[in-house]
Amino acid sequence: MTKHPVLIDGQWRPSTGQQFFQAVNPRTTEPLPEQYPVSPWSEVEDALHAAERAAQAVRGWSGSRFAEFLETCAGLIDERAADLVAMAHLETGLPVQPRLKEAELPRTTNQLRQAATAARDGSWAEATIDTASNIRSMLGPVGPVAVFGPNNFPYAYNGIAGGDFAGAVAAGNPVIGKGHSSHPGTTRLLAEAAHQAAVATKMPNGFVQLIYRTGHSDGAKLVSHPALGAIGYTGSRSAGVVLKEAADRVGKPIYLELSSINPVYILPGALAERTAAIVDQFVSSCLMATGQFCTNPGLIITLAGPTTEEFLRQTTERFAAAPVGTLLSEGVQKNLHAGIQTLVKHGATLLTGGSTGGGAGFSCQNTLLRVSGERFVRDWEALQTEAFGNSSLVVVASNEAEVLAVTRCLEGNLTGSVYSANDGSDDKLYESIAAILRQKVGRLLNDKMPTGVAVVASMNHGGPFPATGHSGFTAVGFPASVRRFAMLQCYDNVRSNRLPASLQNKNPTGSLWRRINGAWTQADVPAGNG
Amino acid sequence: MTKHPVLIDGQWRPSTGQQFFQAVNPRTTEPLPEQYPVSPWSEVEDALHAAERAAQAVRGWSGSRFAEFLETCAGLIDERAADLVAMAHLETGLPVQPRLKEAELPRTTNQLRQAATAARDGSWAEATIDTASNIRSMLGPVGPVAVFGPNNFPYAYNGIAGGDFAGAVAAGNPVIGKGHSSHPGTTRLLAEAAHQAAVATKMPNGFVQLIYRTGHSDGAKLVSHPALGAIGYTGSRSAGVVLKEAADRVGKPIYLELSSINPVYILPGALAERTAAIVDQFVSSCLMATGQFCTNPGLIITLAGPTTEEFLRQTTERFAAAPVGTLLSEGVQKNLHAGIQTLVKHGATLLTGGSTGGGAGFSCQNTLLRVSGERFVRDWEALQTEAFGNSSLVVVASNEAEVLAVTRCLEGNLTGSVYSANDGSDDKLYESIAAILRQKVGRLLNDKMPTGVAVVASMNHGGPFPATGHSGFTAVGFPASVRRFAMLQCYDNVRSNRLPASLQNKNPTGSLWRRINGAWTQADVPAGNG
Repeated sequence: MTKHPVLIDGQWRPSTGQQFFQAVNPRTTEPLPEQYPVSPWSEVEDALHAAERAAQAVRGWSGSRFAEFLETCAGLIDERAADLVAMAHLETGLPVQPRLKEAELPRTTNQLRQAATAARDGSWAEATIDTASNIRSMLGPVGPVAVFGPNNFPYAYNGIAGGDFAGAVAAGNPVIGKGHSSHPGTTRLLAEAAHQAAVATKMPNGFVQLIYRTGHSDGAKLVSHPALGAIGYTGSRSAGVVLKEAADRVGKPIYLELSSINPVYILPGALAERTAAIVDQFVSSCLMATGQFCTNPGLIITLAGPTTEEFLRQTTERFAAAPVGTLLSEGVQKNLHAGIQTLVKHGATLLTGGSTGGGAGFSCQNTLLRVSGERFVRDWEALQTEAFGNSSLVVVASNEAEVLAVTRCLEGNLTGSVYSANDGSDDKLYESIAAILRQKVGRLLNDKMPTGVAVVASMNHGGPFPATGHSGFTAVGFPASVRRFAMLQCYDNVRSNRLPASLQNKNPTGSLWRRINGAWTQADVPAGNG
Repeated sequence: MTKHPVLIDGQWRPSTGQQFFQAVNPRTTEPLPEQYPVSPWSEVEDALHAAERAAQAVRGWSGSRFAEFLETCAGLIDERAADLVAMAHLETGLPVQPRLKEAELPRTTNQLRQAATAARDGSWAEATIDTASNIRSMLGPVGPVAVFGPNNFPYAYNGIAGGDFAGAVAAGNPVIGKGHSSHPGTTRLLAEAAHQAAVATKMPNGFVQLIYRTGHSDGAKLVSHPALGAIGYTGSRSAGVVLKEAADRVGKPIYLELSSINPVYILPGALAERTAAIVDQFVSSCLMATGQFCTNPGLIITLAGPTTEEFLRQTTERFAAAPVGTLLSEGVQKNLHAGIQTLVKHGATLLTGGSTGGGAGFSCQNTLLRVSGERFVRDWEALQTEAFGNSSLVVVASNEAEVLAVTRCLEGNLTGSVYSANDGSDDKLYESIAAILRQKVGRLLNDKMPTGVAVVASMNHGGPFPATGHSGFTAVGFPASVRRFAMLQCYDNVRSNRLPASLQNKNPTGSLWRRINGAWTQADVPAGNG
């Protein structure tokens, strides 16, 4: 059984740790043979110091250097696609097709390439120049970034290849990737690509590093270490708030994606017009990838009436008939089952499912629950327990006022969707819901399920706590997601030869967008200024 | 003795509190006659609920509505300038001329008017439209904002008239102003102007509210209340971190400006060229307003040698000879003296000053201290104790390596300044310092003292913790400071009649800057899209 090394300071080196762990094949529930280390604190500290040196080494580099690295990285991932798909399938149980091979892997390399484009372009930094006062500012690298990847996206959110990694690098920062324990082999392959890309594009040692696992208290030490600039974390709320507290205490920016149940309103007029289509969309969205999406529709809000009963009847039938998928791990199975039990304990009734098993390996029946609006309002906190996986709770409100009362009880979420009639009959209710819901979700959707996160500039994969740690930022979409890993750097009366290229009078690329004396422009600073 | 009411839900109403406090004239150390209430929690909660209703009432309003309010506010402050100057002079001891009348009050109305311009223009919201996916996003109001004003700027940072107030309103949010206990009368006059402006421009009740003081635990309850969207705080580090912890625990954005000692490097070549000019600038910057600026140069870093000794000799002489100003309060006097004692205890020696008294009322001698670079590095935490007021510590490093070691020990600051030779002789050392200093300060200056914060778009009045709570944001400058009080709001497939005007195909003003399909433009969305 191979004991795998860690990637520190430009070298794959044996871990000095004494503890090792193995991934588990979720479809067989058997451990996989490879051994991965739990890094002791001294190893984490080595990585921090190496990252600090790397940050100094790349200081002042143009965005194109980081772009070359990111693009090389994407190319190497493409080359190793077959290995990556096989390994991720083994470790996560996610389907090879279309999920891993045709959806997530291309999305991941696309993200890396979009990040490269943003880095090369440089406009993400929002260079701002006021010539009368000769003050100039832009967003600049915040310093080494630790990225904690989640279990549910082995590539697209991976600590050493995903969106946070891409954004942190595009801003010019070294990354310390923290793998997720459920897919260390996938993470290793991605780190090999990142390391190879770093060597090929002459990045300094310590620019990309990988640690598979640390003790819990070392995680808190890592995120509060003086050498670290910022943290990206995607994962469970319980582990996330521990890291958040440690980082907050020392004023370190930490961007978290925690939990979200993504309320979906299905208004009566929409059901009257198109029940079957909505059932199709809901069942597909909720059960896809065994429901293991951050934007999984975990809460459906409806108004009592015959169309809602018909919707529930059809949905229940479809949930019961659909094949049961494999869950990512024993922990996911346990948490999902516990979440369902919490909902039941607090007044939800099972329409179908509710027990573990039913699929290959770790699994839980496709589960649909129902609760009254009155009960939801009375016990709002427990009834927003996230049951992460192939499960959803339908709230049936007795009247419109109760729909609004339910809405007022909602915690922060990544998304909120509203299906309404095309004939305008739901418009008044829509307006009342949206007035409250808008402040509680990062992305408001119409007539669409929330799964499917387009990687475009206008995307917001964020939202108020506890969906994320700060509602002003998005984890997906370029260039916006890059700015999380930046600090605002102002230059007051700084001599022109000492300014970063983006703040000098001449536009360094001719295409960089800058705000000069109040207006966005791609031109040079007008002659006679500065 | 008048007992003053609080401003809640559109009414000046008697406080239900039983406790009252009085301001103190710092020049006489005598209490002033007016009584101001300490609000009980029920009163704070009334304000929160009223603010929540106001936020709903202004939902969807165009920026021009908020602009009208802000401009009316500025106009009313101008009208009452004489009263405001007299009152602030009485309560703070700050000089009438030029400080209060010619500098701070015009800056304050200028900020309100710049915020109005930003609100009317709307470009601060960075509307982003992708037509292929029909996803659109922009920054939108975060919800009611509580603004805690500091002691040292009775107007420009006041909770009911200052920069945070202006930014929060420009983003479309109601504000609950929390006055500072040292100048309640000034705050009352500003709140009267804000209330009058709110009535004149038909803002809803609860859009601007004022509380003078709360119990400490009620402050923490306020900042973590579900009805609140965000918090702006300027003040002491000790009180700030308590509020920060309460807000962080519930994931509420809190923007803090805490403490900053603003290192100023004076390199040998600069001294050789222009000692007298640098002495002039330093003495004036450090003693102006009795040193009570967030950007006061509290730490000077020099290299040992005869020019530095001459600089110290001249500076010491000037500090000793300069009139001693009045401090804002007994608390400031006490903290300044305690700060100086801490520095002395940890190895700094007094060149001049060090005792309380010497000026009218609350005061402390103009104080200059000296410490070796070696000692600073050894005891870096204590030797960065903020001695807020007319005091500064000069670090004399024995060589260039020690200058860099000192730099590595610096905590986060608002500013960092470097004076270097015009003939290029300091350039190598400048580069080594800047490489480290850049990551530790929000604003890097050349050949300039840090006091004097221009209100321009490129300003950064921010910096890494403990200077502020998040290095990505600035508290001064429009439009950037507005975005602190906003959340990212994305619209995915939302029907066009339901979109905010700024995201509809037609550019609502013809001058709004939006990022459409990747490029900044003031045009409409091209026909055939969306």
